[in-house]
Amino acid sequence: MPQDRAALVPVLHNVATQLRIDSIRSTTAAESGHPTTCASAADLIAALFFAEMRFDPKHPLHPLNDRFVLSKGHAAPILYAAWAAVGYIKRDDLLNLRKIDSDLEGHPTPRLPFVDVATGSLGQGLAAGLGAALNAQRIGSDYRTYALLGDGETAEGSVWEAAELAAFKKVDNLVGITDVNRLGQSRPTMWQHDLDGLARRWSAFGWNAIVINGHDLNAILDAFAAARETKGRPTMILAKTFKGYGVSFLQDKEGWHGKALKAGDEEHRAIAELEKTLNGVPADAIDKLRDAIPKPPAAPAATKRSPLAPPAYKPGDVVASREAYGTALARLGKADSRIVALDADVGNSTFSERFEKAAPERFYESYIAEQVMVGAAMGLAARGAIPYPSTFACFLTRAYDFLRMAAISNLNVKLAGSHAGVSIGEDGPSQMALEDLAMTRAEPNFTVLYPSDAVCAERCVELAADQPGPVYIRTSRPKTPILYDANETFTVGGSKVLRQSARDAVTVIGAGVTLFEALKAFDLLAKDGIAIRVIDLYSVQPVDADTLLAAAHATDGRVVTVEDHYAAGGIGDAVATALAPAGFAVHRLAVREIPRSGKPEELLDRFGISAGSIVNAVKAVTSDRTVAKV
Amino acid sequence: MPQDRAALVPVLHNVATQLRIDSIRSTTAAESGHPTTCASAADLIAALFFAEMRFDPKHPLHPLNDRFVLSKGHAAPILYAAWAAVGYIKRDDLLNLRKIDSDLEGHPTPRLPFVDVATGSLGQGLAAGLGAALNAQRIGSDYRTYALLGDGETAEGSVWEAAELAAFKKVDNLVGITDVNRLGQSRPTMWQHDLDGLARRWSAFGWNAIVINGHDLNAILDAFAAARETKGRPTMILAKTFKGYGVSFLQDKEGWHGKALKAGDEEHRAIAELEKTLNGVPADAIDKLRDAIPKPPAAPAATKRSPLAPPAYKPGDVVASREAYGTALARLGKADSRIVALDADVGNSTFSERFEKAAPERFYESYIAEQVMVGAAMGLAARGAIPYPSTFACFLTRAYDFLRMAAISNLNVKLAGSHAGVSIGEDGPSQMALEDLAMTRAEPNFTVLYPSDAVCAERCVELAADQPGPVYIRTSRPKTPILYDANETFTVGGSKVLRQSARDAVTVIGAGVTLFEALKAFDLLAKDGIAIRVIDLYSVQPVDADTLLAAAHATDGRVVTVEDHYAAGGIGDAVATALAPAGFAVHRLAVREIPRSGKPEELLDRFGISAGSIVNAVKAVTSDRTVAKV
Repeated sequence: MPQDRAALVPVLHNVATQLRIDSIRSTTAAESGHPTTCASAADLIAALFFAEMRFDPKHPLHPLNDRFVLSKGHAAPILYAAWAAVGYIKRDDLLNLRKIDSDLEGHPTPRLPFVDVATGSLGQGLAAGLGAALNAQRIGSDYRTYALLGDGETAEGSVWEAAELAAFKKVDNLVGITDVNRLGQSRPTMWQHDLDGLARRWSAFGWNAIVINGHDLNAILDAFAAARETKGRPTMILAKTFKGYGVSFLQDKEGWHGKALKAGDEEHRAIAELEKTLNGVPADAIDKLRDAIPKPPAAPAATKRSPLAPPAYKPGDVVASREAYGTALARLGKADSRIVALDADVGNSTFSERFEKAAPERFYESYIAEQVMVGAAMGLAARGAIPYPSTFACFLTRAYDFLRMAAISNLNVKLAGSHAGVSIGEDGPSQMALEDLAMTRAEPNFTVLYPSDAVCAERCVELAADQPGPVYIRTSRPKTPILYDANETFTVGGSKVLRQSARDAVTVIGAGVTLFEALKAFDLLAKDGIAIRVIDLYSVQPVDADTLLAAAHATDGRVVTVEDHYAAGGIGDAVATALAPAGFAVHRLAVREIPRSGKPEELLDRFGISAGSIVNAVKAVTSDRTVAKV
Repeated sequence: MPQDRAALVPVLHNVATQLRIDSIRSTTAAESGHPTTCASAADLIAALFFAEMRFDPKHPLHPLNDRFVLSKGHAAPILYAAWAAVGYIKRDDLLNLRKIDSDLEGHPTPRLPFVDVATGSLGQGLAAGLGAALNAQRIGSDYRTYALLGDGETAEGSVWEAAELAAFKKVDNLVGITDVNRLGQSRPTMWQHDLDGLARRWSAFGWNAIVINGHDLNAILDAFAAARETKGRPTMILAKTFKGYGVSFLQDKEGWHGKALKAGDEEHRAIAELEKTLNGVPADAIDKLRDAIPKPPAAPAATKRSPLAPPAYKPGDVVASREAYGTALARLGKADSRIVALDADVGNSTFSERFEKAAPERFYESYIAEQVMVGAAMGLAARGAIPYPSTFACFLTRAYDFLRMAAISNLNVKLAGSHAGVSIGEDGPSQMALEDLAMTRAEPNFTVLYPSDAVCAERCVELAADQPGPVYIRTSRPKTPILYDANETFTVGGSKVLRQSARDAVTVIGAGVTLFEALKAFDLLAKDGIAIRVIDLYSVQPVDADTLLAAAHATDGRVVTVEDHYAAGGIGDAVATALAPAGFAVHRLAVREIPRSGKPEELLDRFGISAGSIVNAVKAVTSDRTVAKV
C-alpha cells in the first residue's frame, strides 16, 4: 500500500469503528443477527477493504477483482457495512437487513453481486477461496483471494481438506484469516485463545502461519504484507480477537452469540462507547482512502464455444456411460478453456482421467476429499470457470451440504457421479449410490441428467455446460449397448420414447441400466402378446411432463417406473409428480432394502428391478382393476 | 503381552504371511477386490489380533471385547482372514468372498458380528472408533479401541474432525494406525512416504504420534506398548508400509489398486513368493498364540427402562417442538443410562442443553463438526448406547454420507434436526432445512418422525429410543400450541386425524408448522361452508397408509399435502406413494424455489405453504374436474 502507515492506521481505526456501529445498528433494526462476531472482525475487514485488496467498488463482479469470501457468514452485517463504506451500498439500506424485500439477507448469498458463494454453513469458505485462487491461475491473473474464517468453524473437517489441498497446490495467492474470538455459540471454542496451538496445526499442514493481535491494525497490515511476500504456500493469519470488541458489556462475554442489542438504551450505550474511540483524523480521510483503492486491469473478453461434433459411436458398440462421460469431457475441455475438472482419486473409474490427459493444467486432483472438491468447484464456478467435479455417486453424499449451498448460490457446478446403484455389483452397498437422485432432485434448481447410452452421455456433458446453475450427471458402471444415432439430439427436460404402438398396455419408464431391462422386458412381453411403451427418462429434473402424460393417457393410466435407486426421491417420484395433476398414479420398481454384494445381474433381480421384475409388474398392473379404472 | 518377544515375532510373521495369502486367494476366487492393500496391513493386523487385543474370538459381540474398526474397508479380505485365523470363520469360507449368498461382502458390514460399523466410505472409521472409546468410558470398561486407516483416506476432513475431538476428549483408550502404503487408487497419495510430515500433523492435533516401519513386528509391538503407556491423549501409529508387500511384482507398484490376481500362474507365483518367507516355527505355535488371546471379563447385565410419565403440558401452552425435544431427552436420559446426546455447538438452539444439564457425563459436545458427531454416535450405538446427535436439521446434510453408512449398518442412531424449513425466518436459506426429509426418507430403513406439538415431540423422542435402527426426528423453531392431551399415544407408522366430518371435501395433510396452517385453513374454509379433513402426519416414514387411504376415499381422491420442505422427497411424495396403489394422486404444496430471509409468516405465504395457500389449493382441487373424477 502506498499510504504512510502512521497516517493510515488512525483512518482504518475509524473505518473499523464505523463498521462496528453499522453492524449494531442494522442488527438492532432487524431485531436479530450477530453484532458481536462482526465486532471481532472489524479491524481485519477495515484493513482488507481499505488498505489491502485490489478491486473496483463500483463493479463487484469485475473478474479481476481480488476476492473476499466471508466464510463466517453470520458476520454478514459487517460485510454489508464494508460495501457501504466503499460506496456500493447506501448506508441507510443497511437498516433493511433481513427484510423480505432486501437482498441483505441474514447470511450472504450471491443475490448480492459481491458475494461469490453463499455462506452460513460454516467451514465452506476456505474451499471456495481455494477455487477462486485456482481460477486466478487458470486465467493467468494476479488477483488474490482472502477468506475470513471463524475459529469455531475450523473444527469442520472441510477446512482441513482445503488446508491440505491448498498447501499441496502451493497456492500463494490465497490468504486465510481466522478471527479467533474464542467464543462459539453455546460455549467457548475447543482451543479458545491458544493461538500457538492453532498455528502449529496450520504450519503442520504446510501453511505460512502468522499469529497477530487482530485488533492491532499495524500488525494486520504487516501480516498482509508478509503474505504477499510468501511464495509457494498459502498464508493463514491467526488473529487473536475479542467477540464484541470495543463495547464493555459485550467484549469477550458469553451469552451474546447471535443476539441483537435492544433498540434504545442498550444500542445507544454500545454505539456511544464506540464513538468515543473515534479519533480526530480529517473528515475526508476515509474518502481519500476509498478513492485510493487500487483498481484491477481491464477485464478479458468473454469465452465462447462452438457445439461439439457428434459422438463417434457406431451401432453394436458397448460402452459404459461413465466412459462416455470422460470422452466427452475431454472433448469439451479442448473446445473451451472455461471447462475444468476435479476428481477425488477415482479418475480411472469416473474416466475424468481422459480430461486430465487432454487438459492437465485444468484438472485438479482433490484426492480423497469430496468436500474440498465440490467447494473448490464452487469457487471456480463463481469466477467464470465451468467445473465438473466427479467421483463415485455415493460419495457425493459426503459433500451434500456443499451441494445445498451450491444450489442456494445457483452456481455453475456440474457434478458427475459414476457407479450408480446395485448394478456395480460385488463391491457392496457402501459403494452403491442409491440416494443420489433424491439428494439432487430435492434442490429445486438442480438439473438432473441420467444418460443410458454413450451417445446420450456425451450430449449430457455438453448440455450441462450450457445449462445455467447446478447440474448433476449420473452415470453407470456396466457397459451397455449404443441406443442412439450419433446425430440424435437431447435437451434438458426431454425424454425419448423408444418403443411404442397403438396398442400399448403399459408405459414403462427407466434410465440407466433399468432402461435396458425395460427393453428386454418389451421383448419378453411381446412373446405373450403384450405391448409396452418404453421411455428413456434421461432428464430426471426437469422432467418431460408432456411426453409422460401422453403416454399415461395412451396406456389408460398404467405406468411403471423402474430405477436402480431407492424407492424414495428418484424416478418414481419424478414421474408421479408429473402425472399427479392428471390424476394418474405410478407403480414403482426400486431398491427397497439395504442391498449387498453380488453379481450385477443377480442384484437387479434380487432387488426387483430386472427385466423379469418388469414383466411381473406389467402383468400385475394390466390385471389390476384398481389401476385400470384410473 | 506375556509372550517372549523373540519367540513371538516369528509366529506373528507366519500369521501375517497367511493373512496375505488368504487375501490373495479370496480375491482371486471372487475375481475382484483389493489384495495389495491387504498385504500392506498384514503385519499390523497379525500383531493386533494375536498379540495386542483382548477379545473372545468365539463371541465377537461381547460388549467388553477390545474393538477393531477397519476404516480402510476395502481391505475387507484381510479382516475376514484375521477372523478365520482366530477361528471364528472357516478358512474355506473365505473363498465365498463377495458372493450374493455370503456375508463376506466386498466391504465389511455389520451383517458380520465382528463388524461394528460398515466401512468402505473412507474417513469414517476413526470417528466410529472415538464413539467406541467414549462408550468404554460410559460403561466404565477398560476395553480399548483400534482403528486402522489408509493413508489416502486421511485427506478426508472427517478424519481431522475425529482427530480434534479425540484429543480434546483426551481418550487414551483409542489407538489409530495409519497404513501408509504410499499409493492411492489413481496415483500416489498427496504426501506419499513423508511419515514425518504426517506425524507433525497428528502431533499438532494433540496426538501421541509414533512413526514405525509397518513391516517390523518388533516395532509394531513396541508401538502398541507405548500407546498403552500413554495417558491423557490418543495415539496414532504411522506405519510406513508397501502396498502389495511380500510379492515382488506387486510391491510398491502403481496400477495394482483394486485388482485381483488372475487365477493360475499369477496367483500361484504370488503365493509361492509369500510361502517362501514362512519360517520353521512349530506347526502348533499359531494355535498356542490363538489360545493365549486374553479374554474380556463377564458381560454386564442388560439395561432396561420403564415408560416415561406423560409430558407435563396443559391446554393453552405454546411450546416449540425443539424445546420439547430437549425436555424429553433429559427425562429419558435420567431414566436410562444407555441414552447419550451429542451436539454441534447449537445445544442452546436444539435444546440438547437440557440433557447436558441432566446427564453431563453422557453429553458429548462435538463443536462445529457434524461428521464426527454422527460418526461417534455410530460407534456409541454399535457398543450398546442409544445416541441422539442433534444440530440444525440443515447441517445434517454435512454428515449425509455418515447417515448413509449408519443406514447400511442399521445402527441405533437417533438423529434430531431442529429449525426445519422457511419458518425459521430471518436467518435465510443457509440455515433452513428443506431437503432433510428427502435425505432421510431415501434410506429405506430410516424411521422419520416430524412432531407438530410438544406432546407428540416428547413421545417421538421416547419412540425413537425403542425403535430399532436409525431414526430422524425433525423439529421446528417457532413456538406452537399444544394439540394433544398429555395421555395421547403415538406410534411409529401412526397419524392423527384432527378434523373430520361426513362431508369432507378434501383431505389436507401436514406436519410441523404447516399442520397449524392447515388448522387455520379449516377455520377459514368452514366460513365458506367447505369442510376439510386434517391429518397430522407425525410419522413420515413409515407412513400410515391405512388412514391416508381411508381419508382419500372419503374425500373422493382429493388430497392436498403441505410441507415446509422442498417439493421433492418429503411429505407429498410419502403420501403419494402410499396412495398410488389405490390410484389416487396428490396435490402438493411445498417450497419450490430457493427461499430467502424474511419473517416466518411472510415466508410461509410467499412460498405457498400458508393457511391462505391451503385455502386456495382446496378451492382449486374441489373445482378441478380432472382430480374430482379420480
